[in-house]
Amino acid sequence: MTDRSGAAATPIDFAEVEIDDEFWSSRIETNRNVTIEYQYDQLEESGTLGNFRRVADGKSGGFRGMWFQDSDAYKWIEGASYVLAKRDDPALKEKVDEVIGLVASAQQADGYLNTYFSLVEPDNRWTNLHMMHELYCAGHLVEAAVAHYRATGERSLLDVAIDFADYIDDVFGDEVDGVPGHEEIELALIRLYRVTGTDRYLDLARYFLDRRGGDDRLEWELTHPDEIGGYEYDDGALIPDSESPEGVFFDENGAYDGRYAQAHRTLRDQKYVEGHSVRAMYLYAAAAELAIETDDSSLVEPLERLWRNMTEKRMYITGGIGPEHAHEGFTEDYDLRNDSYAETCAAVGSIFWNQRMFELTGEAKYPDLVERTLYNGFLAGVSADGAEFFYENPLESSGDHHRKGWFTCACCPPNVARLLASLGNYLYARGDDGVYVNQYIGSSVSVTVDGAEVELTQRSSLPWDGEVELGVTAPEPTELSVYLRVPEWCENVRVTVNGESVDAESDEYVELRREWDDDRVALSLEQSVERMVAHPEVEADAGRVALVRGPLVYCVEDADNDRPVYQYLLRTDADLETDRREDLLGGVVTIEGPADVPTLSEWGDDLYLPVERTDTETAMLTAVPYYAWDNRDPGAMRVWLRTDR
Amino acid sequence: MTDRSGAAATPIDFAEVEIDDEFWSSRIETNRNVTIEYQYDQLEESGTLGNFRRVADGKSGGFRGMWFQDSDAYKWIEGASYVLAKRDDPALKEKVDEVIGLVASAQQADGYLNTYFSLVEPDNRWTNLHMMHELYCAGHLVEAAVAHYRATGERSLLDVAIDFADYIDDVFGDEVDGVPGHEEIELALIRLYRVTGTDRYLDLARYFLDRRGGDDRLEWELTHPDEIGGYEYDDGALIPDSESPEGVFFDENGAYDGRYAQAHRTLRDQKYVEGHSVRAMYLYAAAAELAIETDDSSLVEPLERLWRNMTEKRMYITGGIGPEHAHEGFTEDYDLRNDSYAETCAAVGSIFWNQRMFELTGEAKYPDLVERTLYNGFLAGVSADGAEFFYENPLESSGDHHRKGWFTCACCPPNVARLLASLGNYLYARGDDGVYVNQYIGSSVSVTVDGAEVELTQRSSLPWDGEVELGVTAPEPTELSVYLRVPEWCENVRVTVNGESVDAESDEYVELRREWDDDRVALSLEQSVERMVAHPEVEADAGRVALVRGPLVYCVEDADNDRPVYQYLLRTDADLETDRREDLLGGVVTIEGPADVPTLSEWGDDLYLPVERTDTETAMLTAVPYYAWDNRDPGAMRVWLRTDR
Repeated sequence: MTDRSGAAATPIDFAEVEIDDEFWSSRIETNRNVTIEYQYDQLEESGTLGNFRRVADGKSGGFRGMWFQDSDAYKWIEGASYVLAKRDDPALKEKVDEVIGLVASAQQADGYLNTYFSLVEPDNRWTNLHMMHELYCAGHLVEAAVAHYRATGERSLLDVAIDFADYIDDVFGDEVDGVPGHEEIELALIRLYRVTGTDRYLDLARYFLDRRGGDDRLEWELTHPDEIGGYEYDDGALIPDSESPEGVFFDENGAYDGRYAQAHRTLRDQKYVEGHSVRAMYLYAAAAELAIETDDSSLVEPLERLWRNMTEKRMYITGGIGPEHAHEGFTEDYDLRNDSYAETCAAVGSIFWNQRMFELTGEAKYPDLVERTLYNGFLAGVSADGAEFFYENPLESSGDHHRKGWFTCACCPPNVARLLASLGNYLYARGDDGVYVNQYIGSSVSVTVDGAEVELTQRSSLPWDGEVELGVTAPEPTELSVYLRVPEWCENVRVTVNGESVDAESDEYVELRREWDDDRVALSLEQSVERMVAHPEVEADAGRVALVRGPLVYCVEDADNDRPVYQYLLRTDADLETDRREDLLGGVVTIEGPADVPTLSEWGDDLYLPVERTDTETAMLTAVPYYAWDNRDPGAMRVWLRTDR
Repeated sequence: MTDRSGAAATPIDFAEVEIDDEFWSSRIETNRNVTIEYQYDQLEESGTLGNFRRVADGKSGGFRGMWFQDSDAYKWIEGASYVLAKRDDPALKEKVDEVIGLVASAQQADGYLNTYFSLVEPDNRWTNLHMMHELYCAGHLVEAAVAHYRATGERSLLDVAIDFADYIDDVFGDEVDGVPGHEEIELALIRLYRVTGTDRYLDLARYFLDRRGGDDRLEWELTHPDEIGGYEYDDGALIPDSESPEGVFFDENGAYDGRYAQAHRTLRDQKYVEGHSVRAMYLYAAAAELAIETDDSSLVEPLERLWRNMTEKRMYITGGIGPEHAHEGFTEDYDLRNDSYAETCAAVGSIFWNQRMFELTGEAKYPDLVERTLYNGFLAGVSADGAEFFYENPLESSGDHHRKGWFTCACCPPNVARLLASLGNYLYARGDDGVYVNQYIGSSVSVTVDGAEVELTQRSSLPWDGEVELGVTAPEPTELSVYLRVPEWCENVRVTVNGESVDAESDEYVELRREWDDDRVALSLEQSVERMVAHPEVEADAGRVALVRGPLVYCVEDADNDRPVYQYLLRTDADLETDRREDLLGGVVTIEGPADVPTLSEWGDDLYLPVERTDTETAMLTAVPYYAWDNRDPGAMRVWLRTDR
């Protein structure tokens, strides 16, 4: 319906992809059985549904939770809809319909929908765009509606979203000229445009994207606290002043500093990833989506520049981003302190952005980063049992950081749920002349390229081994290219087709062009244990190495080691071995090797000794995948291990 | 006048000691010329004197500064009096008299003296002992009065202090049964007892010391915020509640936790140095003083136990103590994080305590720690020019921690001033059968032991070299022992008397017993550069070494090094050399040697690389004494350097 004229590749929708994978299937099942069920209960528990009910009942006041709590319901609907897209689940559908009914009943006659403002400050709509998140909630409503419509064909929520979007489009640009403090609606509007074909949504998304960082009203709001909404919330805690933590809204001179909301300059002029990291990711993802949809090449170079700044200067080895707690965001180049904030939602946002950068360019480095983030910075966000979540993902813990069932600000859990429920989106894509295989996750899919259909059946031993088998069958022999991504971590690739070796020299994609009939591709991605070091300007990692194998970053936990984790020094020449441990953490490959630890016997009552009066001895060190940490007894953890350089 | 029956040694008062030392004399001069003058100006600037004037004028309200601001004036008088004890300085004496006049004029008819309560809450005296510091201020008044009286023979302030002390003694134990939240008055009362011979002050000190940690009223105050004073101060910020930072007043269950003020149990039952570190030091110093004065041997073992806990588990290598910012104090064994709080006042307090532990026991380990603290944790507290001060003394800085001219809470600067002005107190002591030489600082003194007089003239090259000369002359030949402290840092001592070697095997004191006439002692204390390592349980220092030479701890600053300080790895086998640099920082000995730094040429746009694709190269590292840091352009600093173990 829409043209995506800027796209180099088009992803195959998760609804078309059947995942059957040793590593991921159980996680997707747990997400469906546990996480989404649990989150539904939390919607009631946290007062989210009650807020909608109070509005529907015409009540005033009594709002519960965060001022953007509505979005919890929307994100849950979105995740649940992705489940419904894949399987019949009448009980879940009933719950979805119930929540949708509550949402619809809280919509105002003019289309407006926000329970905080309806209950608490009905006269203050759109007065505090910077902090009050009306457009952010609207965006999540739209995404939920699109997901629900695509999953069920039902318009119950889509119509609500359309009414609200139409109303927003009527108001913005005229009555109100400004942009949201928290991006989200931009991407949502483009998705709404895709399902409806209605141009005004695309135009409104473009308005929000182009308007940001120009002469917008965010500064006016921050400097006119008496004239904006939010005062009623928690004693006006949402009205920032120049004493705001770490000067995220204002600089040290009290002057407006738009970086927190990526509003310090227009997107096309931005050089560094700045501010609140989830906001940044949602903005860049939307901009990439706009560039794809409208072939706006002026966005490509700025986005590539921002991507380079992020990946070359401001990203954890796990793919996590945003070190600073105070504003949940980016700080300076090479500030990668290991008590990382690295919010789970920011990892989700980075996956969104990278997927769209791939669609825009067809380059393998983007699915490379999707993979790295999926297996590490993202996956650590949820516990093995699917019921507990990290908001923050430090790379080092003294043992007091643990996942929780829910949060006052519960943005992360439903973001985890909606991503896992739609994981199939990231596996395959359609190019002009063939099919991209981006993620090595066991699955099957039918793809039509230029009218010709092929069926792909993938079996993968990732992340534990690098063996991948791909069956390609066509109803009738069909010539097209199969592009196999060569992961950045892989130094040696071997590819055979029907047992015959093919040339696989590539850093990006191995292209297999041939007439496919009923063929078997075998891909062998060498996985070796690598000791990675960080750039010399990363102070936090000076003298440290991180263990990486295939797509997995490893960490050392107290649970597997006799000494406190900080006592180990892993020499650069120490032999490291891997061990497949079915008994451990649901089955993992560990990395083990000898390390130096201080000999304790010299130490009596002394607190300090000359180095020559002390010694070291050898102790075995065991590392486990980072995503699996904090699933056992509480203890210390570190990714970056001390080494002798 | 008093008996000091528990003393193993009696210090020679600084008034009897003439310091003439290459290292310290200029600092004492600067303290007199700059620091004390500057602090006098600040008394006016900060409103401290104005508070006294308002009370004298019968005014109400208008109190300026911290609620214990009176103590700034008292500590200044004390420091200035120490100057007056050493030299005629009519201009300074005039200022002292002026301040004393203001203080006296603010005393109430009943002897009470506290400008905060007189101006703001006159009806709330003694209702908030825990936080409102009336007794703390009274203690500093008494110490100032004793110092002034001893320096000048004038009773102008002594009579004020006596009136207040008598009033306090009338009130406490009867009308009010409780102890101060911030110890200080205990030590002061014993000093007042010493100059007056009046038993009630000693008894009152004993009451405060014995009462603490028993069934006292601190808990009652904290749990009855409506019935105590302090509400008028900064919107009641002084009324602690169970939300107080880091639970310093209450434990995680909201129950009273007296550790902040060392009131969790009686002193004799305390096993760990706890809570606010300045409070702790003042308490222990007073307890040692009481044990000395009254021969109360029941205090000795508890004090030694606390001292071992501090020095074996909770002390920085600089002698600094108290890592935690939130409650300015101690935390857990081996928590020695390098963004240390290590308040300058706590170092001063530790010197007070250690001096008294020496007097109590005659053991060398106490002046050892006085020396270590003087040259490092204490001396870093003041800038080379004497006009700027550290409140906090981190062992590692990224370049944003600097000394300041004054503080809202200005406890540290006058503590620095009064210690430097009375430095002579720590050099010599009189034992039963001879003289202790505790600090190697150029000086002369006349000491009478058991009726026999000797004159000591010391020349010292410390801290830069270990050569010390001691002239001992007696009007008539006199047999006594001269005890020369062998510093803990010294592995090799050589001693000659009149050129002839004597046996100098000792870890504590070398005793030279002979008939002295006109003799020359030469002491050679070998100083080598030591790489010290911290106990394996000190996580912050794992894989690190600190450079120490003689009494000095060294640090590495950006100013002397090409690379950021964190990039250097100092191998355990690297050769280190010393260099006398007259041009640097007023003349210092530096430590220099080759270290490993990352080769930068491999690093382009990569943020992470496999270790085998990177390399290191050699760069010279220069370390300077820790006390001298932050006297040049702002930059990073670290004491604990990365090493290869």
